[in-house]
Amino acid sequence: MSEREVEIGEIGEFRLIARIAELVGQRGEGVLIGIGDDTALLEPSRDFCLLATCDVQVEGVHFLREAISPSQLGRRTLAINLSDIAAMGGIPRWAILSLVLPPDLPLSWVDEFYAGLQSEGQLFQVSLVGGNLSRSPGPLIVDLTLFGEVEPDIVVERRGARPGDLLLVTGELGLAGAGLLLLRGKEVSREEGQELIQAFLTPRPRVREGRLIATSRLARAMIDLSDGLASDLHRLCEASGVGARIDAMRLPFPESVRRVARERGIEPLELVLFGGEDYELLVAVSPEDAPVLVRLLEDAGVSASLIGEVCPQSDGISMVFPDGSVRPLPSAGWDHFVRGKPHR
Amino acid sequence: MSEREVEIGEIGEFRLIARIAELVGQRGEGVLIGIGDDTALLEPSRDFCLLATCDVQVEGVHFLREAISPSQLGRRTLAINLSDIAAMGGIPRWAILSLVLPPDLPLSWVDEFYAGLQSEGQLFQVSLVGGNLSRSPGPLIVDLTLFGEVEPDIVVERRGARPGDLLLVTGELGLAGAGLLLLRGKEVSREEGQELIQAFLTPRPRVREGRLIATSRLARAMIDLSDGLASDLHRLCEASGVGARIDAMRLPFPESVRRVARERGIEPLELVLFGGEDYELLVAVSPEDAPVLVRLLEDAGVSASLIGEVCPQSDGISMVFPDGSVRPLPSAGWDHFVRGKPHR
Repeated sequence: MSEREVEIGEIGEFRLIARIAELVGQRGEGVLIGIGDDTALLEPSRDFCLLATCDVQVEGVHFLREAISPSQLGRRTLAINLSDIAAMGGIPRWAILSLVLPPDLPLSWVDEFYAGLQSEGQLFQVSLVGGNLSRSPGPLIVDLTLFGEVEPDIVVERRGARPGDLLLVTGELGLAGAGLLLLRGKEVSREEGQELIQAFLTPRPRVREGRLIATSRLARAMIDLSDGLASDLHRLCEASGVGARIDAMRLPFPESVRRVARERGIEPLELVLFGGEDYELLVAVSPEDAPVLVRLLEDAGVSASLIGEVCPQSDGISMVFPDGSVRPLPSAGWDHFVRGKPHR
Repeated sequence: MSEREVEIGEIGEFRLIARIAELVGQRGEGVLIGIGDDTALLEPSRDFCLLATCDVQVEGVHFLREAISPSQLGRRTLAINLSDIAAMGGIPRWAILSLVLPPDLPLSWVDEFYAGLQSEGQLFQVSLVGGNLSRSPGPLIVDLTLFGEVEPDIVVERRGARPGDLLLVTGELGLAGAGLLLLRGKEVSREEGQELIQAFLTPRPRVREGRLIATSRLARAMIDLSDGLASDLHRLCEASGVGARIDAMRLPFPESVRRVARERGIEPLELVLFGGEDYELLVAVSPEDAPVLVRLLEDAGVSASLIGEVCPQSDGISMVFPDGSVRPLPSAGWDHFVRGKPHR
């Protein structure tokens, strides 16, 4: 490595774009024109509809540059968008990236960021087809727009849950929340801790699982868990015009989450309900279809837990505690939650 | 108006998204799912290909909040992306918007921004179908991704210009550059000045003209002028593997640009070549087709000027000065340009 790193402000925008085009490499499937013209030109699949979503990562709000490597941020930027495509049952296809970069950023940072983005892209067959570079007078900002495709007759929306449906969640919750706690406490000694931190930094989007759920046609509604189970359950219920009751005893989380929470004197459920960044899928499914869907996911190697049921909207959104009490579940805020009065 | 403005940090993200969904109103054509699910769901037109582009506007880099109204910024954000769709000959369709906002921003700012975006969207039949909101620890940032559609057999790329082709430019150049000078000098008294400032703040993208050029099938290559004629001519030539020679006497600009430049002791050509933000179209067209294309544009009410010709790449990119001398034309930087030695 040279003694002094080259900063992006030292090379022009033209050269930086040429370098990125080289890092990104050859055009992916369905890409007629990629980086280097006024716009990308893409060939949609016949009889599919287009999915489009974006998610921005702002330094100091969503990440700290000293706590995440450029490569991890590249992977994460794509992963959190992939999760949204997964939640519709779609197939990810193309990405467009806006980078707003401080001029003193080392050129190697850009190289490593794209390496991370590319490795995640290869895992999920996504090609980067265009983007935008700008100077930042402050924070580093990464904004990715992701396109996917889906057959319109199998797309799974947030609305569609009906009273009586069961609520299914993939995988386990609270890992990313525990990982963030560890990162903040700078305690990363144990291997267990590393796994939790990885869950936060580079989440695994449930693309294959979302597709499996959609093609099964068994799901009535689906959402990915980006802001926490409680918050996203509220979103799904609001879109569907229903209420829900979940059972604390059925929420899936590993022993490591319990340990990290307890060591910090907080309730594990706080991480599980409000920690966020899980990127698991929450699904509403009829009671008849629920066992079929659980089996389907488990046969594909994914754990699936039935955590509660959908109620009429007038019943609100609540949780059954281990002691049998039932309290309204807020969309965020453990403190208010546990101080609240029992409900019904 | 209330005495104290409500700030966006005071209302939650949920409420802000709901408010935006209301401002945006009903779903546009081809929009199966708009704002409010994990992703948008869009119905592409059969036998068309998809165009996708993005452009970011960063406070302190691309705009100053005190110099542009929220409504103007909303219009501008869409307009500069529309110009890229125009340069491919496409039909604009859908937009996705990322807003990174300081928490003390007045709620009325957001309302007015969307009003501007909506009014531009209505002019060009673009619907906003999704987006993302984030807090900014510093500058206000607006990143818009725009989708368009085009028949793959008429799309006009940057590459395709051949030696002997003529170079055509729509409209007039230098207005936005002069407008920016006036804005910086805070001299906005004359009506003429207002027109130049408007050209900078709310450019008129050549969507109709780009479509006309593409459907005529007469253009060999096309690019929109976002960074200045000189810079974008370099881009078109690089993509086509050609050189070019333009004629200073044929560059179209109004008397007002000449006056503003002269008043500040600079050459009008500096604004015309390097000022940027013109959002006119630069087209390479065969000598036989050039008069037909000029007539076509003029019949549609748009002025079109033949400003030079395409050369072999080995001839480089140059300009004939009024005194008959020929000098290499750099992609940016008037100072270096005029101090350079005559070429050939």
